[in-house]
Amino acid sequence: MLKNDPLEQWDRDTFLHPSTHWADFARGKAVHRIISSGEGSHIVDREGKRLLDAFAGLYCVNVGYGRTEIADAIAAQAKELAYYHSYVGHGTEASVTLAKMILDRAPDHMSRVYFGLGGSDANETNIKLIWYMNNILGRPEKKKIISRWRGYHGSGLMSGSLTGLAAFHNAFDLPLVPILHTEAPYYYRRPDVSMSEEAFSAYCASELEKMILKEGPETIAAFWGEPVLGTGGIVPPPKGYWAAIQEVLNKYDILLVADEVVTGFGRLGSMFGSEHYGMKPDIITIAKGLTSAYAPLSGSIVSKKVWAALEQGTDEMGPIGHGWTYSAHPIGAAAGVANLKLVDDLGLLENAATVGAHLRKAMSDAIGDHPNVGDIRGEGMLCAVELVSDRETRAGWDDQKPAVTAVARLLADGVIGRAMPHSDTIGFAPPLCLTKAEAEEVAEKTAKAIKGTFGS
Amino acid sequence: MLKNDPLEQWDRDTFLHPSTHWADFARGKAVHRIISSGEGSHIVDREGKRLLDAFAGLYCVNVGYGRTEIADAIAAQAKELAYYHSYVGHGTEASVTLAKMILDRAPDHMSRVYFGLGGSDANETNIKLIWYMNNILGRPEKKKIISRWRGYHGSGLMSGSLTGLAAFHNAFDLPLVPILHTEAPYYYRRPDVSMSEEAFSAYCASELEKMILKEGPETIAAFWGEPVLGTGGIVPPPKGYWAAIQEVLNKYDILLVADEVVTGFGRLGSMFGSEHYGMKPDIITIAKGLTSAYAPLSGSIVSKKVWAALEQGTDEMGPIGHGWTYSAHPIGAAAGVANLKLVDDLGLLENAATVGAHLRKAMSDAIGDHPNVGDIRGEGMLCAVELVSDRETRAGWDDQKPAVTAVARLLADGVIGRAMPHSDTIGFAPPLCLTKAEAEEVAEKTAKAIKGTFGS
Ligand SMILES: Cc1ncc(COP(=O)(O)O)c(C=O)c1O
Ligand SMILES: Cc1ncc(COP(=O)(O)O)c(C=O)c1O
Repeated sequence: MLKNDPLEQWDRDTFLHPSTHWADFARGKAVHRIISSGEGSHIVDREGKRLLDAFAGLYCVNVGYGRTEIADAIAAQAKELAYYHSYVGHGTEASVTLAKMILDRAPDHMSRVYFGLGGSDANETNIKLIWYMNNILGRPEKKKIISRWRGYHGSGLMSGSLTGLAAFHNAFDLPLVPILHTEAPYYYRRPDVSMSEEAFSAYCASELEKMILKEGPETIAAFWGEPVLGTGGIVPPPKGYWAAIQEVLNKYDILLVADEVVTGFGRLGSMFGSEHYGMKPDIITIAKGLTSAYAPLSGSIVSKKVWAALEQGTDEMGPIGHGWTYSAHPIGAAAGVANLKLVDDLGLLENAATVGAHLRKAMSDAIGDHPNVGDIRGEGMLCAVELVSDRETRAGWDDQKPAVTAVARLLADGVIGRAMPHSDTIGFAPPLCLTKAEAEEVAEKTAKAIKGTFGS
Repeated sequence: MLKNDPLEQWDRDTFLHPSTHWADFARGKAVHRIISSGEGSHIVDREGKRLLDAFAGLYCVNVGYGRTEIADAIAAQAKELAYYHSYVGHGTEASVTLAKMILDRAPDHMSRVYFGLGGSDANETNIKLIWYMNNILGRPEKKKIISRWRGYHGSGLMSGSLTGLAAFHNAFDLPLVPILHTEAPYYYRRPDVSMSEEAFSAYCASELEKMILKEGPETIAAFWGEPVLGTGGIVPPPKGYWAAIQEVLNKYDILLVADEVVTGFGRLGSMFGSEHYGMKPDIITIAKGLTSAYAPLSGSIVSKKVWAALEQGTDEMGPIGHGWTYSAHPIGAAAGVANLKLVDDLGLLENAATVGAHLRKAMSDAIGDHPNVGDIRGEGMLCAVELVSDRETRAGWDDQKPAVTAVARLLADGVIGRAMPHSDTIGFAPPLCLTKAEAEEVAEKTAKAIKGTFGS
């Protein structure tokens, strides 16, 4: 509809894109790309270029592009009732149905869901609920939160503080108090190469315990973690990690928030990462996979234990003073209902597990022996290839960004991967409907791109 | 589709509604209501009850319910491409078109827009951009922010801190540093009844200046304000207020953020409240009216001055480390394009001005002399009726909530108004397409409800 128009100029003159070099973009130096359509694992840009999106947008288009079941549900809801608020007990059939579907799928000890828009605001809600809870329980000093270096929990001032990545802190004065960061469960970069996975997990847990004791356990409210580190490099936990962490948290009565924005609803081949790793979270953050990004919607699922405090709280203080205008937005809710149904109907948990494993195997077969490939890892439909300058020492690069170069080559070859923020890792998080043939294409072209980057 | 099902039970067992008494809701004591459809200024609930929604959802369904132009745009976008991200220079025709349409409508000195999801996260973005700016400009100590008592800027930890309402602070440990609150421009409750509007405005400005001098001007980054206080009681500024405030801000090189989440795109009968009151903001927050709530979308419009610092910043530091997965979501963008077109096509700015004035006049005619009506005020399509126990002393009530009772009576009579959080004011913010006859119905039934509340 808008071909032959000044769209690019409008874009460069008016639009502040996330994670973009704004000055370069404005002066025409950084990429401008309009995406027009998509189907399955592929998207098509305005020039007609078709790309295999092996990152599913931002690991969110879990059911794949062009699902008419969801588009139709959105269209029907938009026609019937695009919006009414969910304050003071209001809802729509879709939002109530979705709340029930979420609880049906969540671990048994979970109790209720508060709806938000994106992962960041859901984490914001979680902090507020945790602080509220500890005020109600008469321990107002128990407010500090520990998250992890390499964690990603959003871009707000507090969710960005939970995040443990320099690129999201620098020049924004983050992290704010009272957020602290502990060791990342990043086994490949363990301090002592001779450590077993279990020993490294014990080390992470003891580092956490040290921090808790230093700060005073009576001051620590919660621990925040993604079941698998996502943006920090797609890093599954070493063996025994969550059991060791959970034990420390239990000892000091510290809540566990499982940020399942990436892992929730199937990415690991399980409904939730929490069950995948035997975690027993007090709150679960959900977003992306909840609607496969067809419309914005997020949520905070709270446990029975948290619910008891919230119940007591509103009995003592009256209605909760927390609300987003678009909480439980009908369009997002309709998308969520259709999406969760589709995840079941298409057997996407199963496919994530089997094709994800196939992808990692194909990747190992294709490039596992390359002298600059240090690590190939993942879980479910997640795969990461970490590049090193030396396999022996695991040394990386200071300035050059070979992952960035490799990803650009891969894109030119028709496949979207992502150079993760540390720029030493190429990440893949394809739609959960990826086929084996597509997985092989990703592996093969990645191998080619890496070889091209290093000259052989 | 879901009639005769256990929807209510699901709702009570699983759903944490905003601003709700959660314990009462769970035990079946607080209202549960499912909204099914809407048209123009009316909504219909699941029992078939038709209500005149004189609050437009949460002052957001500006074009009214059931607009097929927007529903069709959403449906088409959902079918074509429900989602792709907008990171690193990516976009869709709809999102780029909308960015251009926003800048075309914004005051001339504005330069670019960053898209978010709701008003809260847009204010979060604003704080981040302001802190980033002052870091880039070499004044890292200039970070404090002054907002106003009775202001409402969202429910996040920082946006909730900007908010100046106790109900949104209590038990959440808000406000966080470094947010400070100054005098609300609430003329009806001026300290000295003999003060003229101009004198009260000068007083507010001098209170602001005192705070700035006490804190040190070199520590104050920005001032936050809604052109018309919304949730704090629907309070238009007294004469000369914004000019007086702006002068103080200019004197100390403090940025002005106009939170136009409610006032943007026509509610005051002007495209923006900033032009309506001659404000010259450095950042404008937009949400609600941008899409009329048909899909979540918000934005931060930055001025040329702010843009210059952001440009310098990314040149010095590389890509901005700030992003929401759903920034510029295609569904929201498509809704926004269709909505802004509709606002023009239906002449809603004009209608907001004329019918809004008609509503206030009808309200004054119907109830202005009532001994418990202290003030009737508003601007554009906004109207507030403040109740008092004594018109002479302007005294209110401590415990009883007559506005809550009146609003319940009004609802029973088929009209939705809102008891504003202080519970002494009944607020109206109808769709901008309200007809004169509907305005008269609102006024007439409000009068009846108030008389019923007070027994005559
Ligand atoms: C684990 C995790 N949490 C939270 C977020 C933030 O979600 P959003 O971008 O929707 O605010 C993300 C986004 O990538 C994420 O990966
Ligand atoms: C002036 C103002 N700013 C910000 C917000 C927060 O917007 P949201 O609820 O979409 O986060 C609101 C919501 O009512 C508002 O009225």
